[in-house]
Amino acid sequence: MKPPTHIIETCLYAEDVEAAERFYSDVMGLELFSKAEGKFVFYKMAEAMLLIFDPDASDGSQHKLPDHGAKGPGHVCFRVDEAEFPAWREHLASHGVAIESEHVWPSGVRSLYFRDPAGNSLELAPWKLWA
Amino acid sequence: MKPPTHIIETCLYAEDVEAAERFYSDVMGLELFSKAEGKFVFYKMAEAMLLIFDPDASDGSQHKLPDHGAKGPGHVCFRVDEAEFPAWREHLASHGVAIESEHVWPSGVRSLYFRDPAGNSLELAPWKLWA
Repeated sequence: MKPPTHIIETCLYAEDVEAAERFYSDVMGLELFSKAEGKFVFYKMAEAMLLIFDPDASDGSQHKLPDHGAKGPGHVCFRVDEAEFPAWREHLASHGVAIESEHVWPSGVRSLYFRDPAGNSLELAPWKLWA
Repeated sequence: MKPPTHIIETCLYAEDVEAAERFYSDVMGLELFSKAEGKFVFYKMAEAMLLIFDPDASDGSQHKLPDHGAKGPGHVCFRVDEAEFPAWREHLASHGVAIESEHVWPSGVRSLYFRDPAGNSLELAPWKLWA
């Protein structure tokens, strides 16, 4: 068997799924793929899905899938080139989203941290952070 | 500002980080990138990181980063071609990992579900599940 090379579903949890939808659609600018009122919103990215579930309604009852659902702040990092950071700082400010931290790594690479409405920690960073 | 197209950090949480390391290294076959005893193990995939943290020790104290840490089962789907499913079934069985569910979607695409030692729900599926 070959080890997997790609993650095609990353999950975050939000008790207020509507607030999550407004945030990920309007602030993050992601394309809504599908939703179930009060249960989940799914976003499609380049060959990967961002799935945001109400942790109390992610039991996959629709398809009798294995249940999951975590509580407390999760974390996701989105790939954004540092050249786009000034536009992102302005865009986040215009939506009233506070930058919690701007971290400069020992390599000189920079990360921008803020929160979604559920308190999940989001990060913007270029891939060279890990390359 | 351009919406992000890639997620470069996906997190799961595991209170027993050593058990997580054994599982993701030996069973999932992922390449360990870095670790901090009892705090986290990081795996590097194709232009994305899988980060597994102890939820009580993911406050980034080393770098004073924004804290995060969720409890309860999370979920990740790894991209695996269906042609590799027989090898995966055998491989998981040889490591004593039970297949919790094998789901056939309305499109005919198949997903294989099992759990990591922390109870996180893992899925193997081809990208065409979402394409």
